[in-house]
Amino acid sequence: MEAPAQPQAGEEEDVRRCDAALVTAFGVLGKRWNGMILAVIGQRSLGFAELRRGIGAISDSMLSERLGDLTALGLVARDVDPGPPVAVTYRLTPAGCSVIPVLDQLGDWARDHLDVQH
Amino acid sequence: MEAPAQPQAGEEEDVRRCDAALVTAFGVLGKRWNGMILAVIGQRSLGFAELRRGIGAISDSMLSERLGDLTALGLVARDVDPGPPVAVTYRLTPAGCSVIPVLDQLGDWARDHLDVQH
Repeated sequence: MEAPAQPQAGEEEDVRRCDAALVTAFGVLGKRWNGMILAVIGQRSLGFAELRRGIGAISDSMLSERLGDLTALGLVARDVDPGPPVAVTYRLTPAGCSVIPVLDQLGDWARDHLDVQH
Repeated sequence: MEAPAQPQAGEEEDVRRCDAALVTAFGVLGKRWNGMILAVIGQRSLGFAELRRGIGAISDSMLSERLGDLTALGLVARDVDPGPPVAVTYRLTPAGCSVIPVLDQLGDWARDHLDVQH
């Protein structure tokens, strides 16, 4: 009788480490609006009002909270031009930029293989 | 004065569609254990007990529930060999296989750019 395929000890460890990273990634990116905020900022530098218009149905307080989270995580940078008038803009950091192609692939996969509600 | 960069109407629509796909993807893959179950099955065909050993700290009922979800979503296939003895194994469908490289990239990104707790 053939021995069943079993995960090896080192492999289990790899899988567990991979899972911890995925859980962390999904905790950040799976939070409603976060992926969309990153995608709307994209390669630009946007003020709060422009960003809000780009996203649509998000409240000022929610956008403000999410931008605070994403800034604290080092994915978004907040630039202040002292003016006058003072102008605050948001842009992606290199870490924020680097997740965009992965999000694009994940979105493509979901559209191809899951039932996406528009 | 330079006009501020503003999202175009078509672009907004693209972003919104992309967000719906991401929310769906994260709803499935961000659920605790799901990414790990897909990763442990990987290219193999595993029985329930082997799969459970590969994952570690998951209860039988939780693994059973998650496998039911992933099967209903078309990401995992359940094969029954009528035996005797009856043998049930789980493998990834093509849709399930196709997300593995994207999960790997997302995990790599999280390890490089987020604070992953092991």
